[in-house]
Amino acid sequence: METEFVDWLRRRVTSSPSVPTGIGDDAAVIEVPNGVAVVTSDMLMDGTDFEMERCDRRRVGRKALAVNLSDLAAMAARPAAAIVSLAIPARDGLEIAKEVYEGLLELAAEYHVPIAGGDTNSWSGPFAVSITLLGNPTGRGPVRRSGAQVGDHLLVTGEFGGSILGRHFDFTPRVEEAIWIHENEELHAAIDVSDGLSLDLSRLVSASTCGAEIGTDLIPVSNAAKQLSANDGVSPLDHALCDGEDFELVLAVPPATAERLLAAQPLDVPLTRIGRLVSNPGLWQSTQGKTPVPLPARGYEH
Amino acid sequence: METEFVDWLRRRVTSSPSVPTGIGDDAAVIEVPNGVAVVTSDMLMDGTDFEMERCDRRRVGRKALAVNLSDLAAMAARPAAAIVSLAIPARDGLEIAKEVYEGLLELAAEYHVPIAGGDTNSWSGPFAVSITLLGNPTGRGPVRRSGAQVGDHLLVTGEFGGSILGRHFDFTPRVEEAIWIHENEELHAAIDVSDGLSLDLSRLVSASTCGAEIGTDLIPVSNAAKQLSANDGVSPLDHALCDGEDFELVLAVPPATAERLLAAQPLDVPLTRIGRLVSNPGLWQSTQGKTPVPLPARGYEH
Repeated sequence: METEFVDWLRRRVTSSPSVPTGIGDDAAVIEVPNGVAVVTSDMLMDGTDFEMERCDRRRVGRKALAVNLSDLAAMAARPAAAIVSLAIPARDGLEIAKEVYEGLLELAAEYHVPIAGGDTNSWSGPFAVSITLLGNPTGRGPVRRSGAQVGDHLLVTGEFGGSILGRHFDFTPRVEEAIWIHENEELHAAIDVSDGLSLDLSRLVSASTCGAEIGTDLIPVSNAAKQLSANDGVSPLDHALCDGEDFELVLAVPPATAERLLAAQPLDVPLTRIGRLVSNPGLWQSTQGKTPVPLPARGYEH
Repeated sequence: METEFVDWLRRRVTSSPSVPTGIGDDAAVIEVPNGVAVVTSDMLMDGTDFEMERCDRRRVGRKALAVNLSDLAAMAARPAAAIVSLAIPARDGLEIAKEVYEGLLELAAEYHVPIAGGDTNSWSGPFAVSITLLGNPTGRGPVRRSGAQVGDHLLVTGEFGGSILGRHFDFTPRVEEAIWIHENEELHAAIDVSDGLSLDLSRLVSASTCGAEIGTDLIPVSNAAKQLSANDGVSPLDHALCDGEDFELVLAVPPATAERLLAAQPLDVPLTRIGRLVSNPGLWQSTQGKTPVPLPARGYEH
């Protein structure tokens, strides 16, 4: 449903001249007095994003904030305030609300995110949590998906695939990492991998009206992807390309910046080069000495 | 559940020094570069706030934005951006999402509110909509509940009671009205009436650490309140004091300001004086020539 709806909404919203919109990047850029802020919002729902009955509710609360922090990381913005709305089933409502908040507040403290308010309601429906997160860009402004240039190199943080084994709850939003690179180096574009490395990469190149050649043998594949592969027969690489919820960053930087970052490894998490931006639209799998072949963009489609 | 939870949350949040909070006013005041913004969030849910099956979905969408606009009105802040999250039942999902948005976008255009983004998800649960609204205060800063002073007069916009007959969907958020008064006159404190005139009044006086004497015969009672009274035997005044969802404003202003506003009636909606702030805490019903008696604060308790 979502793609059709987003298309409709985009047409409907942009047809009202008094109602501009920021839909497109990981977070929207909005005007505030004397500058801009970024804002992002994600709703997580029982039965869609997790099974509440089988989950540690603290991890659900942590994740609800963490996915929004990851969106801010993609814009290299510093979190300024979170607004938290909970829809709580009447049964065990107070217990659920407290445990969700415990996980959420622990991460909020770690990332220095004030909880500015919100709305907590019990009802006859299942559990849902919607968090809106405001952020302040660095002095260099927000990083966009659309800024990548042909010739840029593509770097990624961390490893990919198999997040379903646990990392989709316990990942580290790369907020400080993105801000550090944006403040100290030349960062052209970024996206966080929520729906799958290949799918989110295709969004970045599409927004930048270019393409990317990926050395698939360069992609850092997680042990969890290998573990899954042993059971389901899907290759570890396909898990890394398509699983999603890695919440690592893909960064487009000039070649000289890439060299410097790869040599210095200035972050707590490893940086790996996986490819480069090309003029030919779409994703391409490049193998040394061979003609690049199309690389399908697959992942979680809403 | 909510009162107990909010108490818990207040303790839990304020015990983490790195996590301050703005819970208390109609909207939270947050720091942005070079100033402050206000932010408010309300979630409306099928079965709690309305029966989706029996409603015009456009009115649901309109109301979801309107309640947030009313919160900004209480702070005399101008809407800057809305973030809209929808939880949509799988059945008829696209149709529901479009109709809700149609109502919402019409009001957004009227109030010049950009839709900055959001999240739309279908699921197995009932319909819910959560809107977070950002606003910019006037040059005089946000109006708070806590600024009322002993001796101030209490003015209200519009009429009270019986909103269930239709006005709870179609009310006019008093955004321009509040901004006009704040920019042109001395406005000490304000609150919007969402849970009942007497209950929200009690919140204003409690935040301002004073009390209020109300001339209950001065309260503008709506025709809808009289209509309900004819059927249910509850007095029109009790409907006006306790029904809630009027989304009119209660304003605390100095006596000379009150005189000027009442004589000039500068707004599109009538302003009425209903009482004054006193040092004796709580709400008091005053009748000419008699000792004031306690006025119970009743309304919708979450």
